[in-house]
Amino acid sequence: MSVSVPIRLGERSYPIHIGRGLLARPELLAPALSARQVAVVSNETVAPLFLERLQAGLGERHTLAVVIPDGERHKTLETAGRVFDALLGAGFDRGCTVVALGGGVVGDLAGFVAATYQRGVALVQVPTTLLAMVDSSVGGKTAVNHPRGKNMIGAFHQPRAVLADLDTLDTLPDREYRAGLAEVIKYGLIGDPEFFAWLEDHMDALLARDTAAVTHAVERSCSDKARVVEADERESGVRALLNLGHTFGHAIKTATSYDRWLHGEAVAAGMAMAADLSHRLGWLTPAELDRTLALLAAAGLPAAPPAMTPDRFRELMSLDKKNRGGRLHLVLLRGIGRAVVTDAAEPAALDATLAEFCARPVPDPA
Amino acid sequence: MSVSVPIRLGERSYPIHIGRGLLARPELLAPALSARQVAVVSNETVAPLFLERLQAGLGERHTLAVVIPDGERHKTLETAGRVFDALLGAGFDRGCTVVALGGGVVGDLAGFVAATYQRGVALVQVPTTLLAMVDSSVGGKTAVNHPRGKNMIGAFHQPRAVLADLDTLDTLPDREYRAGLAEVIKYGLIGDPEFFAWLEDHMDALLARDTAAVTHAVERSCSDKARVVEADERESGVRALLNLGHTFGHAIKTATSYDRWLHGEAVAAGMAMAADLSHRLGWLTPAELDRTLALLAAAGLPAAPPAMTPDRFRELMSLDKKNRGGRLHLVLLRGIGRAVVTDAAEPAALDATLAEFCARPVPDPA
Repeated sequence: MSVSVPIRLGERSYPIHIGRGLLARPELLAPALSARQVAVVSNETVAPLFLERLQAGLGERHTLAVVIPDGERHKTLETAGRVFDALLGAGFDRGCTVVALGGGVVGDLAGFVAATYQRGVALVQVPTTLLAMVDSSVGGKTAVNHPRGKNMIGAFHQPRAVLADLDTLDTLPDREYRAGLAEVIKYGLIGDPEFFAWLEDHMDALLARDTAAVTHAVERSCSDKARVVEADERESGVRALLNLGHTFGHAIKTATSYDRWLHGEAVAAGMAMAADLSHRLGWLTPAELDRTLALLAAAGLPAAPPAMTPDRFRELMSLDKKNRGGRLHLVLLRGIGRAVVTDAAEPAALDATLAEFCARPVPDPA
Repeated sequence: MSVSVPIRLGERSYPIHIGRGLLARPELLAPALSARQVAVVSNETVAPLFLERLQAGLGERHTLAVVIPDGERHKTLETAGRVFDALLGAGFDRGCTVVALGGGVVGDLAGFVAATYQRGVALVQVPTTLLAMVDSSVGGKTAVNHPRGKNMIGAFHQPRAVLADLDTLDTLPDREYRAGLAEVIKYGLIGDPEFFAWLEDHMDALLARDTAAVTHAVERSCSDKARVVEADERESGVRALLNLGHTFGHAIKTATSYDRWLHGEAVAAGMAMAADLSHRLGWLTPAELDRTLALLAAAGLPAAPPAMTPDRFRELMSLDKKNRGGRLHLVLLRGIGRAVVTDAAEPAALDATLAEFCARPVPDPA
C-alpha cells in the first residue's frame, strides 16, 4: 500500500510515492528511468542496507553503483568530480538516469551531478532518512558546499520521481529521525496550523515510528512543500518561507564545520530563535512561543545554539545566500502557521535574541 | 551604430547587440545587470586589452575582476572552483551578475559558474572572438571539460544580453579569426544556402575584416542560430543540427589534448569529413562537396584531421555526448543548407571516410 503526492510543475511534474516496501516495487521506478543506463549514487552506510534491494528491481539495465563516503563534509565539488569520473568511466551518456539512494547529502550531491552531467540527465530520488523524505528530495534543489558556506554551488533540477520507502526508516538512528521531525514541525509553523496541532497530539506515536502516524506526517509535509514549490519553483518569492529557522541554522552548521550538528538539529534551534525574535517584535504571543518551544522539546530537539558569540553568529548569518544587496532577510512568524519573509526585524530585537540564546548555549547533540 | 538580434525564449529572452564601440556604451549593458555586484570573468590575454574599457561603463557598481589563465586546458572544474572562491571571498550574493569577457573558453566557464553559483545568477556575455560571437555566447550552453571529454559537465543557462563589440576583433590573431569563420560557414551549410552563396562571394572581404562584411556575417550567423535555439532550447531535437562537424571535431580536439587545434579548426575538418560521408551516402552531389571543401579552403581552414588511426578516431567519436544508447548519431548533409541528424550512416561508408581522411593527415595548424 502506498500513497502518492503529485508535484505539479508542467512538463517537470512528478509523483512522490510514500509507503512500505516500495524498493521491491520496480513498477514505481520504471516510468522514471529514461533509458538503459542507471547510476545509483549512495553512501557507505546506506549502500550495504538497501542497494541490493534497489538494484534487484532494475532488471536488465546497465547499472552502475557509485558509493561515496558518509557525511556532510563530503558534499563537495571534489566528491561530485569523483562521481563524474565514474559516470564517464562507465561510458554513461545523456540518456542515463541518476538515482540518489540516501539522505540529504546523497540527494543534494547526486542531484547536482544529474543537473550538470552532460548539461543535465534524469534524476530519481530515493530518500532513506525522514529529513530527506520531507524536505531535500522534494522540490529540485541540488547543491554542494563550499568552505565559505553551505549549498553555495548548485542548480535547480527536478527529479522524475521520489520514492519514500518507509522501511528504510527502520534502521535510521533515533537522533537522525528526530532531526527529520524538525522539518516536519516546520511545515506546521509555516502555513499549516491544523497539522501543527496534529503534531502536538501525535508526537508520541511519531517517536514510536507508528506506521500510520509516519505515513501521515510524510504525506502532509510533502503536500505542504509541494504547494509552495508549485507556486515558486525557483525561489524568487514564497518558497523562501521554507527557510524558516535556516538562516540561524546555517550559522550554527557553519560554526560547527557542518558535521557536529545535523541539519534538522540546527534548524530546530534556528526555529526556536526565529520564534523568539518574532515574539520580541510582538508578532507571536507568549502562548504561541511556548507551544513552539514545547513541540521542539517533545521531539527531543535542541532549542538553542552551541557556544558561539553573538558577533560570530551575526557574521555567519550575513553570508547566507538568501541575502541580497546586503540586507538580512529572515523568515519570521506572525502566528503559528503564518510565516513571512521580512527585512523589517529591528537590529535591536535581533541583538536581544542573539544575546539571550548565545548566553545559554547547549552542548553538541549526540 | 549597432544592430540587435533578439533571441525569443519567453521570460528568458535577450538581445544580441552587434557593432563597433559597444564596450563604451554602458546603456546597452545596464538593463542586463540585476544589482550592484558585478563580477567580470576574463583571461590573461583579454583582460589587459578590454577590461578597463568595460569596467569604466560599470560606474558605481561593486566590481570584481576574476582573471583566469588563457587556454582550453584551463576550462575545468578546478578553474571554476577558483572563480567560486573569488565570488564568495568578495561576498557576492544571489543578486550578482557575472560578465564573461573573452572567447569561448571564458564564456563557457563563466557561464557554468553563473549557472551554478548559489543555484544560478545573472549572466552577460561579452565575446571577444569571432567564434564566441557567432556561436558559444549565444544559446545558453555552458560547460567545463573533463579529461575524458569536452563539455561533459555543464548546464543550460541563458545570458541576459550579449554584447558583440567588433572592435575586439581588431586584435584577434588571424588564426583565431579564421577558426571563427568555420562556424560562420556552418550556418550556411546547415540551413541557409543563400548565406553560403554570400560567403562564397565575400570571403575576401571577410578575411580583410571589412566592417560591413563582418557585421553582416555576425548578424546572419546569430539570426540563424537564434531560430534554431528558439525552436529547441535544450537540444532535444533540431538544435543538434548546430553540431555539424562537431562529433568528428571533438574526436580531433580530444586526440590533440584540446590545445593544439582550435575549436573552429577541428570543426572545419569535421565538416569536410561530414560532407565527404554525406557524399558517399549519395546525399551530397560531387559539385556540392567541392563547393564545401573550396569554401573551407578559401577561409584558410584545415580540411583533414591530424595523424590518428581510424580506430582511435572511431573510439573518440563514440564518447561524444550527442550519442544515446550506444548508437552513433551524426549531423550530415542532404544538400548545402539542408542538414539532418541521423543514425542511418552505413558503418562501411563511415569506415571509408575515416580511412581516406586518416590516410592523408595534415600537420597541426599554426
